[in-house]
Parts: sequence; structure tokens; C-alpha cells
Amino acid sequence: MNTPEELRALVESYLADLALTPEVGGLDASMRYALEGGGKRVRPVLCLATAEAAGADPEAALPAAAALELVHSFSLVHDDLPALDDDEVRRGRPSTWAAHGEAVAILAGDALLAEALRLALSYPSPAVARELVQATLGMIGGQYLDITGGEQNLAALHRLKTGCLFSASVACALWVAEVPEGEQKPWRAFADEVGLLFQIVDDILDEDGYLLERGADGARALADETAERAQARLAEVDADTSVLAGIVTGLAARTS
Amino acid sequence: MNTPEELRALVESYLADLALTPEVGGLDASMRYALEGGGKRVRPVLCLATAEAAGADPEAALPAAAALELVHSFSLVHDDLPALDDDEVRRGRPSTWAAHGEAVAILAGDALLAEALRLALSYPSPAVARELVQATLGMIGGQYLDITGGEQNLAALHRLKTGCLFSASVACALWVAEVPEGEQKPWRAFADEVGLLFQIVDDILDEDGYLLERGADGARALADETAERAQARLAEVDADTSVLAGIVTGLAARTS
Repeated sequence: MNTPEELRALVESYLADLALTPEVGGLDASMRYALEGGGKRVRPVLCLATAEAAGADPEAALPAAAALELVHSFSLVHDDLPALDDDEVRRGRPSTWAAHGEAVAILAGDALLAEALRLALSYPSPAVARELVQATLGMIGGQYLDITGGEQNLAALHRLKTGCLFSASVACALWVAEVPEGEQKPWRAFADEVGLLFQIVDDILDEDGYLLERGADGARALADETAERAQARLAEVDADTSVLAGIVTGLAARTS
Repeated sequence: MNTPEELRALVESYLADLALTPEVGGLDASMRYALEGGGKRVRPVLCLATAEAAGADPEAALPAAAALELVHSFSLVHDDLPALDDDEVRRGRPSTWAAHGEAVAILAGDALLAEALRLALSYPSPAVARELVQATLGMIGGQYLDITGGEQNLAALHRLKTGCLFSASVACALWVAEVPEGEQKPWRAFADEVGLLFQIVDDILDEDGYLLERGADGARALADETAERAQARLAEVDADTSVLAGIVTGLAARTS
């Protein structure tokens, strides 16, 4: 079994060598800028680790894993735009629109989404692409709730905005590993808890969301309970899920 | 065989009844606003007419036809944004961002693209979705050339910005009608000419592009030659292509 660090190196190498569609031409510079932003690659690593736990070669899951990262990257590029969150800085450097201009950033986000689907469609079966497109729609719906303030229920908002893509990170791997639909339930329940855990810890680190709602101790307790539930779901799966268990522990304890 | 008017009625009815993914929530209002803008539905009608000429029930091609219109609609919503073409009016009414705000228009465009892929993925085979995503990437690349002025070759620019989606309108129908790849060549050559014809006539009507490059008579002559080549390609196809021939004649003669 590969460690999360080894899986992340696989992702980085695949993304660095990724051939974008030639027709995007000069737009590729802004797309690569957005992709090379120093993200932790949590979603693709989760995807590869799930694929390996479910019996597939992680290399086989690389197009799906990269597609997940491209969708995540698309969402950040558009979220940062002046009309949305108006963030000039992302991970310590200018956000894509601040570096390449608004017009290019809008098109770069569009192209990242389309490239993601192209990667997801490189599999013989449409299942990976279906999973990804459904998650993307949920994520966009969550972003809409976020900017309109129409949703007071933090859990419902995060389930869409963050949870959908985490769930898809696991689900895409299950399709790559050809896990029958009838056996996917505990895996998917695990994925839901991981997405929630990621968001709670994000809020603790950003002093936002769940931290404001529950206070520091309350949010920490919620994170720990969620991590425990994620481990319990993993224990229901008939496979070596030790690497995934380590990822959960790491996500619960992360400090950045 | 259905007339183009009958096919358009099929498209309008399908789009009006189209169930959007529930997760997009209140974003659906801006998406429907963008879709209901009174467009001529040229691409979906071309798709349905091709499907019927190739031996399929046009109803079977409706998800693909609608997906093409959603991609077209997504591109208009984003192109109209202040950072891009800054158009406040589209077809005689406020453009999507002017009516719903920039932030919502960015997300609505994103969601229209994702919904288009969801529709294209409703087929058992991924071929329709692959065709659509490739065309979308070409179209975005064309839009990038357009805003950066990096391309002085009008034909190359239009082949990407307009041609790709016209070609996909025919190609998606071929996959729905299960036309073997080896028999698709004349159909695809026809599609390329139709896309070019559409763009030349657009430029004549808008007093833009080819009209500026070649003058009124030169652009008209180019349109007529292109229409003739489109008809010649159709004649190479072993099928009843009379409705498609009528669509070409109509596109060449259109005045709006």
C-alpha cells in the first residue's frame, strides 16, 4: 500500500505532466497557474487511497483523481473573482484573476471544469463522469447558497459546498475499482463523514462557521466525533483501509 | 420527416419541461432566464434533424440537443459578463448578469455547463458527452483568442468559437443514431461547412468579421460558396437529407 505522501507525489507528477487540450491555446498558462497553487491535494489523494484499498492500481485512478482536483481548482478560481468572494490572494500568492485578469480567470475556470470532465470521460464507462458532474452541480448549488445567504443551516450548506466533492472523491475511486453498486454504501457513508470532518477543521483553523456556531471546544468535539464516525464506517468495509484511516487521523489533527 | 419548425417545437417543449438538478436550488431562476432568451435553437434543431436523417427517432436525440443548447447558453452568459464583452442586452432584454447580478451569472453559466454534461451523460455510451466536452474546450479556446486578440486568422478563430459546437451538433446526433465512426466523415464535413456558413451570415448581419474583411459582396459570395459546399457534402451521405438541405438554405438566407 502506498502512503498518503507517495500518493500525493503520484498526483503532483500526473498534474505536472497533464497535457491540456491543444485548443485552449494560451489559456493554458492561467489554468496551470491555478492548478499549481500549492494545494494539499486532499481530494485526489483520498481518491487514490480509496482505489487502492478497494483493490485497484492507484495509477488507474489518476485521471479521476486529477479530474477531482481540476473541479476543485475551477471552483476556487471562480469563487475568488471580484463579483464573488473578491479574494486577491490565495495560498500566499495572487489569486488567478489577480494574476491573469478577470476575463482570463473566468475562461480558465470554465476550461478547468471542461478538462476535468474530459479526464473523467477517459474511462470506458460513464460512471466516473456522472459522479463528478453530479458533485459539481451540488458544489455550485452550495456556492450559490453561500453568496446569497439563503441557507442558515450550516450543515446543509457545507454538505453541498464541500461534501459533494469529497463524496465524489471516494465514489469515483469505487467505480474505477469496479466495486459493485450494492457494496458501495459503507464507503459512501465514510466519504460523507470525511467531507464534514474536513470542513469542521477548516472552520476551526479559519475561526469561521462551526467555530462561530459552537465555540472552540464545541467545534473540536464535533470534529473528533466526526472522525470517530468516519473510522467506524471504515471498519465496516471488508478491505485493508489502514491508509484511509491514517488520512482521517491526519485530517482531524491538521493545523494548516 | 419532421420540419425544422416541428423539431424546434420539440426542443422548446423539452427545454421548458427540463428538470434541473435539485441541488442548484434558487440558481435555477437565472439558468432558466438564460435558456429562455428567445434563441433560434439552431444547434439543437440541427442535431435533431441529423439524428432523424441518420435513422434515429428525434426524441432519442433530445437530451443531446438540449445539452448543446445549454452549452451555447453557458457561453453567452459568460461572454456577456462585464469582464468579457460587457453586454447589458442580449436579444432585446437584459443579459443574465444585468438581470441577476454578476455573481449569480457566473455561477449560472457554470451550472448550465455542468447540467449540459449531465444530460449528455444520460446516454449509456460516453460518446455524446466526449463530443460535447471536446467542442466546449474548443469554444472556450476560441473565446480566449477573441478577447486577447491573439489570433488574426478569422477562419481559425471562428472554427473554434462557433464551428466546434456546430460540428458537435451533428456529431452528437451521429452517436445517438449509432452511425459507425467509419461512416461519419461526410456528415462531419457537412457540419464544418454549416458552422462556417452560420458565422459568415452572422458577420454579414452584424456588419462584423468577414464583412469587414471582404466587403458586402465578398462576404455574400463566401456565404453562398459555403452553402454550396455544405449541400455537396450532404449529397455524399446515403440518407434522406432533405430537411438538412432546407436548414442550410434557411441559414444562408436568414435575415436575423
